[in-house]
Amino acid sequence: MTLAPAAADGAAPATGARALAHPDRGDIRIEDVLHALSDPTRLLVVRELALAEGELSCSCFGLTVSKSTTTHHFRVLRESGVIRQTYRGTAKMNGLRRHDLDALFPGLLDSVLDAVGRQAGRIDRG
Amino acid sequence: MTLAPAAADGAAPATGARALAHPDRGDIRIEDVLHALSDPTRLLVVRELALAEGELSCSCFGLTVSKSTTTHHFRVLRESGVIRQTYRGTAKMNGLRRHDLDALFPGLLDSVLDAVGRQAGRIDRG
Repeated sequence: MTLAPAAADGAAPATGARALAHPDRGDIRIEDVLHALSDPTRLLVVRELALAEGELSCSCFGLTVSKSTTTHHFRVLRESGVIRQTYRGTAKMNGLRRHDLDALFPGLLDSVLDAVGRQAGRIDRG
Repeated sequence: MTLAPAAADGAAPATGARALAHPDRGDIRIEDVLHALSDPTRLLVVRELALAEGELSCSCFGLTVSKSTTTHHFRVLRESGVIRQTYRGTAKMNGLRRHDLDALFPGLLDSVLDAVGRQAGRIDRG
């Protein structure tokens, strides 16, 4: 393995090492986004991020799953292009990629969030 | 000789034996619908059914996957509540459950279909 171009072109290695991989907007696929949204835990995360309208750390969501399962869910959301994860000091912060999703798939995110809210109401009444 | 109840009330046993299981509208879950839609082959089927605005047999879709994989995809769509499958003679016909989906999750199906069309256009241009 040769040296990565990142070191040669003056990129800061420390930042690079902690930067997480995200798909560019043009590489986000509808089937990957729908897969990322097809899990109740991940839908809960997306709903909280939409309500927050900003970044939240992974610990803010009060998920009832193990740490490794939590990490898995956030990775699926990040790798599909649904969320952006950024290190701020020691905290990994999460934000919804609403601009990217709304530009690529207008109305999709809002209709999914609406559907989740309706289903929650239906189950509460049921 | 006594008549069996099924024969006595005029029900046709053959029809009952060939009926396929479908979730009632109230049992359709958003996460199951999103999972069913998170596959390119299944999205293609849903798009064709939406364009057809009626029933199509499994053989109409020209899928490039094996017969068993095709059966699997249609079963996922049926069990999630996205399509209804009905035997007509020897043919298994498929129809989109648009009324059920639109009633439960307004705008969701249209936004997904729109997203699939946009992505296809993006890839054609890319």
